[in-house]
Amino acid sequence: MSRGAHLTRCNNFTANSHAPVRCFSLAKNKNTQKERVVILGSGWAGYGFARTLDPAKYERVIISPRSYFVFTPLLASTSVGTLEFRTILEPVRRIPGKVGFYQGWADDIDFNRKTIRVETNAAEEAASKTVIPGPSVRDPTIEVPGRRPKGDIIDISYDKLVIACGAYSQTFGIDGVRQHAHFLRDIGDARRIRLRVLSLFEQCSYPRDSDHLSDADKRQLLHFAIVGGGPTGIEFAAELHDLIRDDLAPIYPDLYKFVSITVYDVAPKVLPMFDQALAKYAMDTFTRYKIQVKTEHHLERLRLADGEFGRRHGALKIKIKEYGDEEVGAGMVVWSTGLMANPLIAKLASKDLHLPGTNPFSTSPSTRRRLLRDPRTGGIVTDEYLRARTTTTSTKEGETTKTTPATTTDDILDDVYIIGDCAISTPSPSSTNNAKQPPTPPPLPQTAQVAAQQATHLAKRLNAGGAAAVAQKPFKFRNWGTLTYLGSWKAIHQSEADELRGWVAWVLWRGAYLTKSMSWRNKLLVPVYWVVSWVFGRGISRF
Amino acid sequence: MSRGAHLTRCNNFTANSHAPVRCFSLAKNKNTQKERVVILGSGWAGYGFARTLDPAKYERVIISPRSYFVFTPLLASTSVGTLEFRTILEPVRRIPGKVGFYQGWADDIDFNRKTIRVETNAAEEAASKTVIPGPSVRDPTIEVPGRRPKGDIIDISYDKLVIACGAYSQTFGIDGVRQHAHFLRDIGDARRIRLRVLSLFEQCSYPRDSDHLSDADKRQLLHFAIVGGGPTGIEFAAELHDLIRDDLAPIYPDLYKFVSITVYDVAPKVLPMFDQALAKYAMDTFTRYKIQVKTEHHLERLRLADGEFGRRHGALKIKIKEYGDEEVGAGMVVWSTGLMANPLIAKLASKDLHLPGTNPFSTSPSTRRRLLRDPRTGGIVTDEYLRARTTTTSTKEGETTKTTPATTTDDILDDVYIIGDCAISTPSPSSTNNAKQPPTPPPLPQTAQVAAQQATHLAKRLNAGGAAAVAQKPFKFRNWGTLTYLGSWKAIHQSEADELRGWVAWVLWRGAYLTKSMSWRNKLLVPVYWVVSWVFGRGISRF
Repeated sequence: MSRGAHLTRCNNFTANSHAPVRCFSLAKNKNTQKERVVILGSGWAGYGFARTLDPAKYERVIISPRSYFVFTPLLASTSVGTLEFRTILEPVRRIPGKVGFYQGWADDIDFNRKTIRVETNAAEEAASKTVIPGPSVRDPTIEVPGRRPKGDIIDISYDKLVIACGAYSQTFGIDGVRQHAHFLRDIGDARRIRLRVLSLFEQCSYPRDSDHLSDADKRQLLHFAIVGGGPTGIEFAAELHDLIRDDLAPIYPDLYKFVSITVYDVAPKVLPMFDQALAKYAMDTFTRYKIQVKTEHHLERLRLADGEFGRRHGALKIKIKEYGDEEVGAGMVVWSTGLMANPLIAKLASKDLHLPGTNPFSTSPSTRRRLLRDPRTGGIVTDEYLRARTTTTSTKEGETTKTTPATTTDDILDDVYIIGDCAISTPSPSSTNNAKQPPTPPPLPQTAQVAAQQATHLAKRLNAGGAAAVAQKPFKFRNWGTLTYLGSWKAIHQSEADELRGWVAWVLWRGAYLTKSMSWRNKLLVPVYWVVSWVFGRGISRF
Repeated sequence: MSRGAHLTRCNNFTANSHAPVRCFSLAKNKNTQKERVVILGSGWAGYGFARTLDPAKYERVIISPRSYFVFTPLLASTSVGTLEFRTILEPVRRIPGKVGFYQGWADDIDFNRKTIRVETNAAEEAASKTVIPGPSVRDPTIEVPGRRPKGDIIDISYDKLVIACGAYSQTFGIDGVRQHAHFLRDIGDARRIRLRVLSLFEQCSYPRDSDHLSDADKRQLLHFAIVGGGPTGIEFAAELHDLIRDDLAPIYPDLYKFVSITVYDVAPKVLPMFDQALAKYAMDTFTRYKIQVKTEHHLERLRLADGEFGRRHGALKIKIKEYGDEEVGAGMVVWSTGLMANPLIAKLASKDLHLPGTNPFSTSPSTRRRLLRDPRTGGIVTDEYLRARTTTTSTKEGETTKTTPATTTDDILDDVYIIGDCAISTPSPSSTNNAKQPPTPPPLPQTAQVAAQQATHLAKRLNAGGAAAVAQKPFKFRNWGTLTYLGSWKAIHQSEADELRGWVAWVLWRGAYLTKSMSWRNKLLVPVYWVVSWVFGRGISRF
C-alpha cells in the first residue's frame, strides 16, 4: 500500500480532522481467501465470540484497549487478595489458533468502506482502570488535563464486524462520583481498591497516644460505603467483610471496632432479581455480619473532606438526600449502580449511513439512514439474529424545527453484528413498512450470561455457514439463574428451576465459576489460591 | 503523653525545622518489662533479624517504607512473569508473634534520647519502586517537582536499635540514569520492567504495511540493554531471554528477528566472583542465546531519543565512551552496577554525638564524637560484634582549614547495631589509643547472604543474653557460595568446596531458593508457578 493511498483513506473520517499526523492502515490480507472478522472488545461478548469463531474459516482480528479478558465474577475476590489478579485474566493473544490483536480504542467506523479507525494504546499503564468519560473526554480536539498522549492511529478493514465494546459505569451525573468513587469493572479497579483498603488500615494504625487521627476520624476512614445493591455491590461487601474479619482484624486488633460497611441503594430492596425469601436470607446474613443495608437512600454528592483529612488521607464526604445537610464520612466509596452507553455507540448512532444500494430511488439529502438506537438505554438495537438494525427517516425539506419523521423504514446493516452490553436485542422488524415499532418483549439484561450466550450463538452460526446461517436461527437466551456470594462460604442461587442458599449454593457457585473459568492455567490456579488463602490467609502486601 | 511533651521532643531534631506541624510520638510502653528493639528496614537484614528475635524477650518494632520483605533472588523471575509478584513477598505484619510495624522512612535518629523520627508512608502507591535520590531529594525543605506530599511525622523511642536500612543503587552520577534506567531491587521495579517489556512488543506489533515504525526503529526498541555484569544483571538477561524465546516469540513471530539483548560492563570480565571456567561456561551459554556481552564498555549518558520516537515510544539513546559520538538505541536499560550509601547513613554519620559520659574529661567544643564511616563505601563501620563504632576527634581550636585530627579514639555506641548493606564490619579497635587504624581484612561483600547471616547471628546473641551475650561471640561469615541462573534450566554455582554447572546447578539453585523461601504459603506457591509457567507459559497480561 503506498503512502498516498492510506493518507487518502485517513481523510474519510470527518470526525477526526485533528487526528495525529501519523496514521496508517491495515488492509485486508489479499493472500488469504478467508473473510476477516473484526471484533471490537475483549469482554464476555468479544472474547467469547473470538474463542468460538473457527480460525480455519475466518481471519480473526480483535481490537480492545485491554490485552486480556477479565473473568468478572471473581473480580471482587481479587480486590480483597483472595485470588491473585492474573488468575482471572486470559490474555487475548493466547486464544488458540491464529488471532490478530491491536490494543486500542475503536474511534470511528466507516461502514461504507468497511474500515475501523483505531487509536492504539501501548502505554505501560494500559487501560486497566475504569475511566468515566467527562462531557467530551473522547473528543480528541478538546484538551483534557492529565490525558495521556494520544496513541498512533491505524485503520483496519473488515469483511464482517462484531461490535462488542460493552458499556460504561452509570454515574447519573452525580457530582464527584467520577472523580472520587472506586469502580469494580476491570483488573486495575480491583488493584486500586485493594491498595486503598490496606492503606486505610495502615493510616489508622499509628500509635495510640497520637493526636493525629481521633477515634472519630478513624471511624470515618474505616467506613466503607458501597453504592448499588445489585449482585456486584453485595458480593464486594461480603468479600470485604471476609477480608477485614479474617485477615485485617488479627493484625490491626485495635481498629476492628472502628470498621463499618454500608450498602446504599435507591430502590426499596436490594438484589431485585432474587425472590423475597432469598433476599431476606441475604439481608439476615448481612445483619449478622453488621453490614448495614440502607435502601431508599439517594446519594447526591461525593467530595473530599476539608483540609488535611481529605487531602492527606483521602477522606470522603457523602451527601445523602434523606439525611439533609449532614454528610456521611467514608474512607472509600465503591460505585456499582449499573451501566450507561459507550460513547462510541452514541457516535456511531449519530452517523448518517451512505451505503450503496440502500435507498436506490432517492438521493434526496432529507432522507437519512442511521443505526437504530434504543432511546432508553442508548444501546444499538439488533434483530433476533444479532444483526445491527438501521432506520431510514424521510423528512420534508425545510421541516427542521419539527423533526417528526414522515416515513420510517427499518432495515439491517449487512455484515455488522452487535452483542453484549452495547446491544439491545429485539425481534426483527415486520416486513410491512409500519411507522410504529412492533411490540417487543422486555430487552435482555446487560449481564455476562447474555453476552456470553450471544457470543457463542453468533460464532457458531457464522462457523456453520456465514451470514446465511446467521439468518436461519434466532438467538434464544437461556437463563442459568443468578448467583450471589454472601461471604463466609455462603451464597444464594436462583434460577427458574430451583433456589439454593447457604454452603450448598457456595459449592455450586465456586464449582460453576471454576468450570466456566477459561484456561486450564487458571482452572488450576484459582483453587490453589482458594486453598492457600484459606490456610495461610489472604495476600496483604501493599505495592 | 501530653501534647506539650511531644511538641518539645519534636524540637530536638534540628534538621527537621520545616517538618509538618502535626507530629506525635510513640513512647515506650511502660506496662511491659521487655526492652523495645527497633529495627530500621525490612530487607534481608531487618526482616531476618525481626523473625529471629524472640518476642517473649523483646518488644519488636519494625520501621520500613515497605510493608513486606522481598525475596530478591527471585525478583528477576517475577519481572518476566514466571512467578507472580506476591509469591516472593512476605508481609512484615505476618511475622509470627507480636510485632509492631510503622510504614515509613527513618528521617533522623537522636542517639542521646534514643528516639527515631519517622516520616510515615501510607500512600496507596507505597514505596515499592527504586527511587534514586537527587542531590537533595530527602531534604524536606527543598521542593522537588512530583514529590508526593509528606507523611505524618512520628517519634519512636527505643532501647536497642538495629540499623538495617540497606543501600541505594549506584549510578555514579551518570547523566540520565536516574531518570531513564530501570532498576531491579524492589517489587515495583519488577512490575515496571514487566510492563515495559510487554509494551515494547505491543508497540512494535502494529501492521506490517505501516510506516510508523521502520525496521530500524523496531530493532532499536527491541534492544534490551543491561548495564552491570554481576549476578543480578546476568540473571535478568537470562530470564528475559527465556521470556522472549518461550512466550513472546510465538505470539509476535514477526518481531523475533529484531530482538537483541546486550550486557555492558566496565570490567574486563563479567561475573568476577566465578572462576575462569565457570565464567566461560556462562559466556558460552550466552553466546548460544545470542546475548551479547560487552566488557570494558563505559556508559557515559542515557537520554530519550529525539522527537516522537522518544516521547511516544520511550526510545532511549545510550552514549558509550568506546563508540565515540555514535549512540546505541534501546527500548529499555536495566541498571545493576552496585550500591551506594543510603542518605540516612550519611546524615547520621555527620551528626555530633553528645552522649553523657562519653568524654567526661573534656567539654571543649573542639572535641567531637561521631559514627565512624568507611570513606570508601560510605557505610558505618561496626566491630566484629556488629556494634556501631564511633570516632572521637580532638582538634586544636582555630585549625579549621587543615582538619587533621590531633587525636582519634575509637569507641562503641551502646545499644546501636548495624547490619546488612549499610554496615562495614571490621574487627574491634585495639585497646591502645593508636591513631592509626589496625590493619583490617577486606570488608564483607554487600550481599543477601552476609545480611541474612548477620541478622541471625545478632538476634540469636540478643536472645541468649542481651548486650553482654553479643559481646561474647564475634560474627563469622560463612560463604555458602554464589549461584547464578543462566536461563533454560541452567545455572552455575561456585563455593569454596565445589563448583557446579548446567542443570545440576539449576536443581540445586531452585531447591536452595525454595527451602530458603520464607513462608509455607510461598514455599507452596513458587513451585506451583514454576510448573504452571512451564506447562502453560508465563503470564503476559499487561495491567
